Amino acid sequence: MTPGTVPFALILLDTASEGLKVPLAMLMVFAAAKLLAEIFERIHQPGIVGEILAGVILGPSVLGWLSPNDVLSALADLGVMFLLFRVGLEVKPSELTKLGPTAALVAACGVLVPMVMGWGIVSLWGQPQIEAVFVGAAMVATSVGITAQVLASKGLLQERASQIILAAAVIDDVLGLLVLASVSSVARGQVNVWEIALTAALAIAFVVVVALWGNHAMGKVVPRMQENMKVAEAEYALAIILLFGLAVLAVYVGVAAIVGAFFAGMALAGKVGQRVNDLVHGAAELLVPFFLAGIGLHVNLLAFRSSSMILLAAILLLAAIFSKFAGCGLSAYRLGRTDAIRIGVGMIPRGEVGMVVAQIGLGLGVISENIYGVVVFMAVATTLVAPPLIKIAFLTTESVSPISTGATSTT
Amino acid sequence: MTPGTVPFALILLDTASEGLKVPLAMLMVFAAAKLLAEIFERIHQPGIVGEILAGVILGPSVLGWLSPNDVLSALADLGVMFLLFRVGLEVKPSELTKLGPTAALVAACGVLVPMVMGWGIVSLWGQPQIEAVFVGAAMVATSVGITAQVLASKGLLQERASQIILAAAVIDDVLGLLVLASVSSVARGQVNVWEIALTAALAIAFVVVVALWGNHAMGKVVPRMQENMKVAEAEYALAIILLFGLAVLAVYVGVAAIVGAFFAGMALAGKVGQRVNDLVHGAAELLVPFFLAGIGLHVNLLAFRSSSMILLAAILLLAAIFSKFAGCGLSAYRLGRTDAIRIGVGMIPRGEVGMVVAQIGLGLGVISENIYGVVVFMAVATTLVAPPLIKIAFLTTESVSPISTGATSTT
Repeated sequence: MTPGTVPFALILLDTASEGLKVPLAMLMVFAAAKLLAEIFERIHQPGIVGEILAGVILGPSVLGWLSPNDVLSALADLGVMFLLFRVGLEVKPSELTKLGPTAALVAACGVLVPMVMGWGIVSLWGQPQIEAVFVGAAMVATSVGITAQVLASKGLLQERASQIILAAAVIDDVLGLLVLASVSSVARGQVNVWEIALTAALAIAFVVVVALWGNHAMGKVVPRMQENMKVAEAEYALAIILLFGLAVLAVYVGVAAIVGAFFAGMALAGKVGQRVNDLVHGAAELLVPFFLAGIGLHVNLLAFRSSSMILLAAILLLAAIFSKFAGCGLSAYRLGRTDAIRIGVGMIPRGEVGMVVAQIGLGLGVISENIYGVVVFMAVATTLVAPPLIKIAFLTTESVSPISTGATSTT
Repeated sequence: MTPGTVPFALILLDTASEGLKVPLAMLMVFAAAKLLAEIFERIHQPGIVGEILAGVILGPSVLGWLSPNDVLSALADLGVMFLLFRVGLEVKPSELTKLGPTAALVAACGVLVPMVMGWGIVSLWGQPQIEAVFVGAAMVATSVGITAQVLASKGLLQERASQIILAAAVIDDVLGLLVLASVSSVARGQVNVWEIALTAALAIAFVVVVALWGNHAMGKVVPRMQENMKVAEAEYALAIILLFGLAVLAVYVGVAAIVGAFFAGMALAGKVGQRVNDLVHGAAELLVPFFLAGIGLHVNLLAFRSSSMILLAAILLLAAIFSKFAGCGLSAYRLGRTDAIRIGVGMIPRGEVGMVVAQIGLGLGVISENIYGVVVFMAVATTLVAPPLIKIAFLTTESVSPISTGATSTT
């Protein structure tokens, strides 16, 4: 093309490329995720693994077509919030709180064992103590989104093991917050016990208040709103506002936005009509693939240049799997072997939570780039390994005493 | 707080603020939009005006809490795509193409009259010719999203006037592309007639092929996919992929992404089940407020420092309203006075399209900051003025010959 003809072509390209960014990114992520999910379903594997792998393939490790950016990570955040919101809508709060003591024990052991194992391994590897402690902290937090998605898609959310996993994951998040707060303050050379205690109190108060009274309060608010609101789809609008409102509140008190989203769903469970469930499903089906593929996007296999790093990654991955399985499974052993195994595998995925902890460590300068890559790999690999294990644990064994056998499928 | 206690608080704040950004922005925009929509519905005004005003209030003009950013504009883009997709799902392509000739005339007059008036006013104002031409171009493109949302929410999409508005808006977009391409190449001092002709041919071919054969093709593809696909909500996944696929293709051939989204909906109209309609509705209800509030966010009333700019803005706004009303209304006069008025007011909103043209002019250095502010004001103000007028034109007058009286409400 001669310079004389460039301007016109250029202006079209300029306009085009600006308008192209959003639909093209949407098309690539969504179509790749659904294509791989379809392939995985056909070979009798969980579709969710395909969706995460779609991110790995589009990301820097393989094709390099996409890398994490503001828009994609915002969509991923929305995706995991809607995922947990949808799960919350199917959970009866009264039953969840009944399982509280068992769930608390599962969560506590599921925090302690991985923390100690992660710290021990990285210490023995010869890394500085503070780095080892941070890796331990990154191995703590369960990414409940992955497990919840598998359970919801198979209609297994009403099983006793599922409910314990959900409750334990919430408590796990609170404990993870405290671990992160303590570890970070150690890294900065300052430990203020009172502030940590205050953080703990605030987070626990939020969880207890919303979990116990949210559903009751919504039972009074929703019918009144329904009568009086004139805007279209008022009930859905109300649900969305509660979702983001509790997500914001959760972040303010220090727990994850998804805990707020989950509680928003639980508060509305049984209080809103099927129409709202359908509409939430529509938003979730659009957004969840961005959460799943977004996890995969963060992997950069090219970071593994040395064989020693590959070895460390493999060891940490095995430790991550084993520590949650053993820690959570054994602490739930009195419920019987089947439920213990289900709970053990259900708590394995680390996903986005482990990555956030590693990122904070990187930001504080206590985790090296190499170790960061290893932790991200561990976090993603656990999400890829867990779904098939969850499927086996739940679908090939019969639970002795399910809470309810009438499982309601969401798909 | 003493320096010794800062680090721990800081790390929590750091983590919090990062995780807070997305849910807080979602909460602010969505809640403000729905609150104002509710207030407007109660005073018997269209809720859509409230949602746009929510953006004005949150934006730099009033509160200054939010300004346009990558994430919000991506959500706005998704919002308007889902809006047009949902509208397309309710349109029967055969009826739309029957109205083609009338729509083409409406579109042509609706491009010519505003273009000439905008150019004339800014010329008389004493601005350079090229700036006047660009303002004229910015007054051309109808923002069909606004009108479509009002019509859909009142269940009026099946009226003859509605269908002509939709068809004319698509043709308008193609004509607007050509105007923009020509004006831009003039601004760069180079006019290549062959490239403009090629652009026109490509855009027209896309519109004709997808509008005529899309629905027929989907009638064959969807049932086959439904039978064979194993992934959950396969039909919805397919619809979303078609939506983004045609949006990307539309941008490649030069027309707006929303034209592709509209065609994707039209291709699937009557070929997918009610379930897909419900799920699309769920995504649209979440995202559309971001499109509407996003329009309002772009207004910066603080830019109007001089009274002469306020006067010019008022004159251009009146011209923008009058030129579309007269140009489109008169060219549809043979359908009777009622339909002519309906079509005239339905084509008034400029919204995001006018802003994009003004932005390109700004980028080329042919539009000054002052005139840019005036054009943005014109674009937003037309979207605020139009919905009440549309409501009056459609709901207080009886159409002589509606295509179908069984209007299907989407709300």
